[in-house]
Amino acid sequence: MLIRVINPNTTASMTSLIEASARAVAGPGVVVEGVTPAMGPASIESHYDEALAVPGLLAEVAAGERDGAAGYVIACFGDPGLDAAREIAAGPVVGIAEAAMHAAALLGRGFSVVTTLSRTRGRASDLAHRYVGAGACKGIHACEIPVLELEGDPTVLPRVASLAAHALETDGSDVIVLGCAGMADLCSELSARLGVPVIDGVAAATLMVQALVTLGLGTSKREEYAKPPAKRYSGILHGFMQPG
Amino acid sequence: MLIRVINPNTTASMTSLIEASARAVAGPGVVVEGVTPAMGPASIESHYDEALAVPGLLAEVAAGERDGAAGYVIACFGDPGLDAAREIAAGPVVGIAEAAMHAAALLGRGFSVVTTLSRTRGRASDLAHRYVGAGACKGIHACEIPVLELEGDPTVLPRVASLAAHALETDGSDVIVLGCAGMADLCSELSARLGVPVIDGVAAATLMVQALVTLGLGTSKREEYAKPPAKRYSGILHGFMQPG
Amino acid sequence: MLIRVINPNTTASMTSLIEASARAVAGPGVVVEGVTPAMGPASIESHYDEALAVPGLLAEVAAGERDGAAGYVIACFGDPGLDAAREIAAGPVVGIAEAAMHAAALLGRGFSVVTTLSRTRGRASDLAHRYVGAGACKGIHACEIPVLELEGDPTVLPRVASLAAHALETDGSDVIVLGCAGMADLCSELSARLGVPVIDGVAAATLMVQALVTLGLGTSKREEYAKPPAKRYSGILHGFMQPG
Amino acid sequence: MLIRVINPNTTASMTSLIEASARAVAGPGVVVEGVTPAMGPASIESHYDEALAVPGLLAEVAAGERDGAAGYVIACFGDPGLDAAREIAAGPVVGIAEAAMHAAALLGRGFSVVTTLSRTRGRASDLAHRYVGAGACKGIHACEIPVLELEGDPTVLPRVASLAAHALETDGSDVIVLGCAGMADLCSELSARLGVPVIDGVAAATLMVQALVTLGLGTSKREEYAKPPAKRYSGILHGFMQPG
Amino acid sequence: MLIRVINPNTTASMTSLIEASARAVAGPGVVVEGVTPAMGPASIESHYDEALAVPGLLAEVAAGERDGAAGYVIACFGDPGLDAAREIAAGPVVGIAEAAMHAAALLGRGFSVVTTLSRTRGRASDLAHRYVGAGACKGIHACEIPVLELEGDPTVLPRVASLAAHALETDGSDVIVLGCAGMADLCSELSARLGVPVIDGVAAATLMVQALVTLGLGTSKREEYAKPPAKRYSGILHGFMQPG
Amino acid sequence: MLIRVINPNTTASMTSLIEASARAVAGPGVVVEGVTPAMGPASIESHYDEALAVPGLLAEVAAGERDGAAGYVIACFGDPGLDAAREIAAGPVVGIAEAAMHAAALLGRGFSVVTTLSRTRGRASDLAHRYVGAGACKGIHACEIPVLELEGDPTVLPRVASLAAHALETDGSDVIVLGCAGMADLCSELSARLGVPVIDGVAAATLMVQALVTLGLGTSKREEYAKPPAKRYSGILHGFMQPG
Repeated sequence: MLIRVINPNTTASMTSLIEASARAVAGPGVVVEGVTPAMGPASIESHYDEALAVPGLLAEVAAGERDGAAGYVIACFGDPGLDAAREIAAGPVVGIAEAAMHAAALLGRGFSVVTTLSRTRGRASDLAHRYVGAGACKGIHACEIPVLELEGDPTVLPRVASLAAHALETDGSDVIVLGCAGMADLCSELSARLGVPVIDGVAAATLMVQALVTLGLGTSKREEYAKPPAKRYSGILHGFMQPG
Repeated sequence: MLIRVINPNTTASMTSLIEASARAVAGPGVVVEGVTPAMGPASIESHYDEALAVPGLLAEVAAGERDGAAGYVIACFGDPGLDAAREIAAGPVVGIAEAAMHAAALLGRGFSVVTTLSRTRGRASDLAHRYVGAGACKGIHACEIPVLELEGDPTVLPRVASLAAHALETDGSDVIVLGCAGMADLCSELSARLGVPVIDGVAAATLMVQALVTLGLGTSKREEYAKPPAKRYSGILHGFMQPG
Repeated sequence: MLIRVINPNTTASMTSLIEASARAVAGPGVVVEGVTPAMGPASIESHYDEALAVPGLLAEVAAGERDGAAGYVIACFGDPGLDAAREIAAGPVVGIAEAAMHAAALLGRGFSVVTTLSRTRGRASDLAHRYVGAGACKGIHACEIPVLELEGDPTVLPRVASLAAHALETDGSDVIVLGCAGMADLCSELSARLGVPVIDGVAAATLMVQALVTLGLGTSKREEYAKPPAKRYSGILHGFMQPG
Repeated sequence: MLIRVINPNTTASMTSLIEASARAVAGPGVVVEGVTPAMGPASIESHYDEALAVPGLLAEVAAGERDGAAGYVIACFGDPGLDAAREIAAGPVVGIAEAAMHAAALLGRGFSVVTTLSRTRGRASDLAHRYVGAGACKGIHACEIPVLELEGDPTVLPRVASLAAHALETDGSDVIVLGCAGMADLCSELSARLGVPVIDGVAAATLMVQALVTLGLGTSKREEYAKPPAKRYSGILHGFMQPG
Repeated sequence: MLIRVINPNTTASMTSLIEASARAVAGPGVVVEGVTPAMGPASIESHYDEALAVPGLLAEVAAGERDGAAGYVIACFGDPGLDAAREIAAGPVVGIAEAAMHAAALLGRGFSVVTTLSRTRGRASDLAHRYVGAGACKGIHACEIPVLELEGDPTVLPRVASLAAHALETDGSDVIVLGCAGMADLCSELSARLGVPVIDGVAAATLMVQALVTLGLGTSKREEYAKPPAKRYSGILHGFMQPG
Repeated sequence: MLIRVINPNTTASMTSLIEASARAVAGPGVVVEGVTPAMGPASIESHYDEALAVPGLLAEVAAGERDGAAGYVIACFGDPGLDAAREIAAGPVVGIAEAAMHAAALLGRGFSVVTTLSRTRGRASDLAHRYVGAGACKGIHACEIPVLELEGDPTVLPRVASLAAHALETDGSDVIVLGCAGMADLCSELSARLGVPVIDGVAAATLMVQALVTLGLGTSKREEYAKPPAKRYSGILHGFMQPG
């Protein structure tokens, strides 16, 4: 079973971290392939970045279809391009916010998200409402560390730990969801410090895709997520065609 | 990894069916143990049945804790005793309605539930609201076949298939959730007939528990789901004590 | 008119307090009978306790049906076994959280619940959503006094009063709901101190049952709450049969 | 205990019917006084009628305060003037839609409203959301009989019965709420025909007011429903002053 | 195009302020007519005031219909009489809370309301839920300045500015909605100080009515907002008849 | 005042139709500029099309900022790229679904959307929930005519009219929202036939942008919609930089 774990930004070191997180949990017989798109932003910290990350992501899904990928993980907490990817993939596609929030719902009364920049909190809130309803997400907290500065800075762990402890107390929550793929390597240490489940969406999404493929389940092709009608694309996007 | 799949009713043939469904999908190294409680109703078709199924179910969770079970599946679509089981288990506990509804949310716009008796639809609706918010569950439809009559009757498959096709059309849904553990063996044939994902909660829950255990995650023990305060139980329930 | 007020825990002194609260408000011609179950936990402070309180409670409802009870109060703020009791009773069954929250909705913009232990707040929140929608319950606050320590301790009143005053201020609420049957005797003194309506669910539920019986109304027997299908119960629960 | 049951329209024969319905259920020692305002519309079948019914209604509440009324019923299904009446009354004020919907929530999974004109359905829907949340009201159905034509027409009962039966089937509901004070006298016969609880809000509200007064509870005077600030009223409304 | 901007209270100086705010933004060819009702309260600070403001307001709408008004603004933040006015007007009717909240939804993630008295916050919250759903309104804050004291007091601006800054911080909002027509003249200065959009509902509603009239749109006359059925009004309200 | 009305697809004839609809309502002094992007899909009928329309749309917003545009209309009913466009534009940005739904909320109890293909209904439903809450959108109906076949086919009007009439009846709605920019020219004829308000989002959005600019209001730059952090874009999207 080939699972493509797509990092929607173009920073290869972050793809490596994501791939490692996915491989650490994938079952025997599962091949995890971390992917960096050929176009798009170096990191995703705005709606604008997110919008411009999607074409590169979709190109990687289309490539995965040609290569026989069984399923896909979208490894950015905004779950960019999720609906579009579902239309063009035969197998399941799971976003890391989606996976983490569904997992959190199985583990406690309510979760807090700890994320990078405050400006991304609106998007996280929208996703929480879509995935698990209004009540499960008790709060979203930003550490104000830019995505590409998470890596290799020893002060990140204590700052995120402190924010998460504050979130549990303030929100009355009992589970922590990590709000950025770049936080994947903090997960076990945070859990040990905080004494509550801490969820890395990359690992969670990988196992959800693995589970869905094992169950023989992929996105429903009835109506909304059916293969898109074929049509002409213009300009620098002319290469985007529906996968055959 | 030992996963206890508890059939909350006392009908052993149904436990066998459930266990087979779970084993068919569990990963290498996972031991699935189907369990029939020593007390309770022969099938669960009312709030009354459900309430009286819970003590026997909890006794099996307590036994599992003594035996080192890594996690639990509650294999009845009403997810009886889920919150209580989470308090006394160290590892994750997942109900089959919960697992099926979360999985359905990953696969389409909205799902329809096909279940046994109309009188159970209210409970299913409550669970859908709790797990995935107000919008994802598009309808709940009953075939009016009692739980214990699902097994071995060749007319069941066409009747459920017909009801599911009607549900997809009426509800504008794109995924089918099977609303009874006793329907587990219908899943693949229904999916082939209907052309949409059909979800058996037993298999889905087994893989969700497996995923959570692999991720090192169990129910949060912060506040609500912490081990219950020890106290005296009276009467025929005097044997119920908190697991140590 | 015979109203059975069932204390779902097995502590007889608490039944006495509950019975007194109910009798103090019941109309002429109403016989209030406080009942202590023959099995179950000494107090209810967890989902586990609540689940194991239900069989004993249902046995008392069944006994009430044989004795011609006109209606029932379930006198624990988690409203345990409410749906199941409604199936087997001919007359109305009202829980004290339910009664208190509906009454609160008639008296102000929004209420705060003051309850015993923090771990029970999730359940109270679920009930508030079910009964009166998302907006009416403005907050749930715990005094961290165990149920059985409420009785006879002179520090309880000032601690609960202080918590309630804090809740009114913090939540912007205008009504207080007492979150435990064991707080019934604090009601009038709290109201005098706080200057807002304070609702004891035991008294409120008693009068709601009385009102429904006077109106000739009981639980609808159309579909969900119809008498449960008869079936076999095994083990120590073999004595549970549907009331005839 | 004096309960003023205010018919917000100016049709005295309808006040008589309402008063009879309230008196039939009120407890010993309760004096029910039916009241017809001195100004306003002959019946209430639009937002416009409702708005113009409120001044007369409020005058009757003010008069009741001078006369020592213990509580008030607003006997029109739109619950006109409810918030304003709560500000000026010391005791509880309950609307008949409010009472009927809260009572319905105690008796089943979900109710259908059967009302007079289609144009009033929006208001009923707004009230249902406010009182008992989004899920309890399953549908609102109009018989298209104007309010003042309900009285004395023998075809009304069978038409309303037929509509209610249709509502139960279509909505999957299990309780019927009568959507007009003028239907109060149909209640018991409808219930007998339909085999489900049928709720007349006039009787239900009367007993809820009686219960609240017995409990010593009135509208909270903390902030929103405190006595309004005194001020000058001009024109034909110059007589409206805050009750002292 | 004649737009009637109705001040629902009877204080003429406030009408002047409102009219000026509307005229400052109205397009060429639009005649803005500020109107003070002949009856009702000097200011609106309670449900009681609001209820008694409606008859005078409706009389002004009826007069506008005779004069060929193209549309109406209801210039009080409680949007009194909005539904009733829509029934009797041929063209659009927009309330200032409604206009401000819809405009705010176009400009950011979520808005805070700054209003006069705390007791009016419940009404503002109800309107926010009705107009733009549960999530857009992040908080409602009162400066505790009575409506008629807003005018001509130089301390009002700094007090409201300080409250609004606090609201942005506390609520995590990004837009300010002014919660009283009497604050219209503070709008541009507040926006300059706060650095976020500040919305005066009077100006916003005027342009929304102008837009709707330009689009040829008025209130739907299908069912709920159709012209009310004609009927007799009694007492001092006998002059209220449906506009022909 | 320059308003850029961006057709997010690359079909110039559709841009002409859209521009005409906007110009027909814009006020004196407003310059409406219809824009066709240099890249992207010929029409938007899937999430995939929508995602790939966004880069071209954002390029046109960036160009508009250089040209001094006062505001923008996004003229596709999925409101693609709305959040991203708000980040990079100084003035207001309004989508046509957003404008139409807000306008509909001012005109009646609830609206029905009539749109092109069934597969787009999920997106429309998501937008309705975001913009005006759960209750205002009563239904979404598809005529199954592809976007580019709307133009010039005389059977389109009667088919859409018939669908809209069905929607009003089935949904109990009172306003029609046209669910595609390509339906703009049907608006007045449909309104005449149906007797209810019919809303073309292009015209509505144009006037909302005009209104917001007149009010001096643009997207809040506090936090979420602030100018995005500058960063490197790779591959064929390397030309996308934040507007300075």
